[in-house]
Amino acid sequence: MTATIPDAPRPSVNALAGPLVEALVADAVALRLAVRREPGGARLVDAGASARGSVEAGRRIAEICLGGLGTVSLAPAGPVAAWPLTVVVHSADPVLACLGSQYAGWSLAGGEGSDFFALGSGPGRAAAAAEPLFEELRYRDEAGRIALVLESASPPPAKVVAEVARAARVAPGDVTFIYAPTQSLAGSTQVVARVLEVALHKAHAVGFDLGAIVDGIGAAPLSPPHPDFVQAMGRTNDAIIYGGRVQLFVEADDADARGLAEALPSTTSRDHGAPFAEIFARFNGDFYAIDSHLFSPAEVVVTSLRTGTSHRGGRLVPELVARSFG
Amino acid sequence: MTATIPDAPRPSVNALAGPLVEALVADAVALRLAVRREPGGARLVDAGASARGSVEAGRRIAEICLGGLGTVSLAPAGPVAAWPLTVVVHSADPVLACLGSQYAGWSLAGGEGSDFFALGSGPGRAAAAAEPLFEELRYRDEAGRIALVLESASPPPAKVVAEVARAARVAPGDVTFIYAPTQSLAGSTQVVARVLEVALHKAHAVGFDLGAIVDGIGAAPLSPPHPDFVQAMGRTNDAIIYGGRVQLFVEADDADARGLAEALPSTTSRDHGAPFAEIFARFNGDFYAIDSHLFSPAEVVVTSLRTGTSHRGGRLVPELVARSFG
Amino acid sequence: MTATIPDAPRPSVNALAGPLVEALVADAVALRLAVRREPGGARLVDAGASARGSVEAGRRIAEICLGGLGTVSLAPAGPVAAWPLTVVVHSADPVLACLGSQYAGWSLAGGEGSDFFALGSGPGRAAAAAEPLFEELRYRDEAGRIALVLESASPPPAKVVAEVARAARVAPGDVTFIYAPTQSLAGSTQVVARVLEVALHKAHAVGFDLGAIVDGIGAAPLSPPHPDFVQAMGRTNDAIIYGGRVQLFVEADDADARGLAEALPSTTSRDHGAPFAEIFARFNGDFYAIDSHLFSPAEVVVTSLRTGTSHRGGRLVPELVARSFG
Repeated sequence: MTATIPDAPRPSVNALAGPLVEALVADAVALRLAVRREPGGARLVDAGASARGSVEAGRRIAEICLGGLGTVSLAPAGPVAAWPLTVVVHSADPVLACLGSQYAGWSLAGGEGSDFFALGSGPGRAAAAAEPLFEELRYRDEAGRIALVLESASPPPAKVVAEVARAARVAPGDVTFIYAPTQSLAGSTQVVARVLEVALHKAHAVGFDLGAIVDGIGAAPLSPPHPDFVQAMGRTNDAIIYGGRVQLFVEADDADARGLAEALPSTTSRDHGAPFAEIFARFNGDFYAIDSHLFSPAEVVVTSLRTGTSHRGGRLVPELVARSFG
Repeated sequence: MTATIPDAPRPSVNALAGPLVEALVADAVALRLAVRREPGGARLVDAGASARGSVEAGRRIAEICLGGLGTVSLAPAGPVAAWPLTVVVHSADPVLACLGSQYAGWSLAGGEGSDFFALGSGPGRAAAAAEPLFEELRYRDEAGRIALVLESASPPPAKVVAEVARAARVAPGDVTFIYAPTQSLAGSTQVVARVLEVALHKAHAVGFDLGAIVDGIGAAPLSPPHPDFVQAMGRTNDAIIYGGRVQLFVEADDADARGLAEALPSTTSRDHGAPFAEIFARFNGDFYAIDSHLFSPAEVVVTSLRTGTSHRGGRLVPELVARSFG
Repeated sequence: MTATIPDAPRPSVNALAGPLVEALVADAVALRLAVRREPGGARLVDAGASARGSVEAGRRIAEICLGGLGTVSLAPAGPVAAWPLTVVVHSADPVLACLGSQYAGWSLAGGEGSDFFALGSGPGRAAAAAEPLFEELRYRDEAGRIALVLESASPPPAKVVAEVARAARVAPGDVTFIYAPTQSLAGSTQVVARVLEVALHKAHAVGFDLGAIVDGIGAAPLSPPHPDFVQAMGRTNDAIIYGGRVQLFVEADDADARGLAEALPSTTSRDHGAPFAEIFARFNGDFYAIDSHLFSPAEVVVTSLRTGTSHRGGRLVPELVARSFG
């Protein structure tokens, strides 16, 4: 397989997300968000740190994360009987939406004297293109205004604001940071909405031709927030690892599609089989010691558009979702 | 527990609902609504009395009832096998959306020589703040134009129009009344969409701190209309009482969250166990003789945001939904 | 029963669909569509022939097909366990939306020297009113700009463009053609979204009074595309015939409602019981030799608004859906 990212015109994820960001800010009171400008001029949207936030804020933040290239909705029924509320993610351009925008791939540290650290996600990443991934995607967004989402309990310090603006070649006043910790309603919702993204990320990790991924839909149960960070992170991961389903449509032969379906699900991981917080404790909180193959949906369907055959891999483990959600 | 309704800025339910009202009127022909002005200038939207109306009209009226603070959608699957169509309600501010706006709490009588009587619901209530509840909510909406929804087969008489305008301190020409009987498609839909509201109302009735309720989602099967008022009302009630599910997220300790989960569902009522129309007949049509604890969802999950623990109460009774819907 | 199509004002399906068409074109890059003008000036939107298209494009094309009189959404759960993704269609005016607009009833042939043939669907049909059906519907849309959807792998030739513009009494530059083959993501999605339309079409075929049909909701599993036309067509048909459910609300007595519920489902067909592609082969590819009663949803509920009684017919055959989808 060779890289087949097309030379077709590519949308601007920041331009598409822009109206969604403005709508979020306009509805701040109803969504229980706090919006302010930091001294450098950047706009800060607190969606779950000091502000309460909401599930709906998380749903909208997830659509912003997708760079306006997908929809996120909440459905009342799914495969986990005790936790029927389901987050559904759909994108007609999952590679750009999920890897080019939603993936939390930009490491942002507060620098000397600061213990701030967050992974930036959302369309602002594509304007900076600070990660090697963007070379593979052959994509850099030219944008006048950008938005970046931080899974964080605190706003970005001045150093991070300056770094982001400089990398994206915009003024600080043209940057909107949206932040919420995993423990919040908005935080947990927007993380569960990464069910499709983790499938894309793993497809990339196992070497599948990204240009062959044409369309994708994912769903996972909405995890209840937990005030403890590890438990909160555990639940959002379990929602995906044991309760997530994804269907990908690929321009690939059956051998490649079948290979992807077999490689993709979390069942391929040696660490599969316990709630994530337990696994995390087993490795003494060393995130990077955990088998990275675990971070993917429980069940996948990969449909080859060349042959019409759908290949399946993995399986849901509803009882682990239930044990995790408590 | 003490009242903790925050002093944070509160949205204007009439301002948020305004664009939804204008869209409803603009789409009147497609939604099979009849719109006219009554002599005093108030706008009357018939959504199911002489006009046919529609399920979609009911869905939109429900969003207007929520004061623009929530969404109502229709899903194709739910827990009652024979009646899969499901009304889903979600609000990031369920107290204000449901109690401050959607609750049918304003008694409007036609006065001498008139047999008109209806319970007003929707954002117009918050502009009038005629009910003691608004003191507890510490909320009164300042609005230039208001909308009020009436579960009624006839339009409001002149006395009611005048009373509403005066109480809300607007001109009659700035009031939109939307009315539909329970027997109509729009009427039954918008009443089933009260599945979250009845949970909020009961939470209030059992003395739970409203300020602690942060987010809420409800779902109930769409009941088919019935031409007889009692049967129609029975079905909408049964949809909620035996087929409704609600999840609330609360800023409360486990003891309080558990207490709410135990107190909230319809199973706590001595009258639980038969279709509502049968219960109504048993009490010779005396609505107020029925145990008020019956008016709540079948099943509830209350998630404490302080501890991350979810507490459950009640249970669905799909066979009673099926018996009621016929 | 007599024709009771009301003399009430009727919406313009082209006017309602217009903004949806413009939004589709505006989002062409994100939805992977190719838009161009043909020499005569008509706008051509390729949604799955040379362009990749997407499920979301198909969903939006389906809403355009409904003439702006309905919604199409994607849900994560339905009755076919292995194929949970479900296309949901809802219209408050199913007769006009489905028969007056969505039905693929306008035969368009390329003429001498051309092997182009396609069935036109969508609001442009109502502007031309070239089919006898429009006399029964007593509807002709006066529209300045029209849109027509073609289930086709190639764009319309000049003769067809001219014929459509002339019949609709507009300039070619005021016509938008949207085309995609059944084998494409958009094509298969928009065809499965005909689950409600086939119910309407069969209701008409069995002589039910169209004026009595007030509201309707349908759902069917999203079929995976297949590169072979017959297999692709087979899957979209099987999604509806063995996996489709429809609920209609009718202004009719129980005898008529029950008669419709019994006559409507695909189970009434002598050809029911095998995947469509097998039936097609059995009749040597002669589409018109297949019993036309087969083309309807698997399961129907018809609710009489006069009596409140719901009548049921048919049954889902999930194992045939699974066999067809592969």
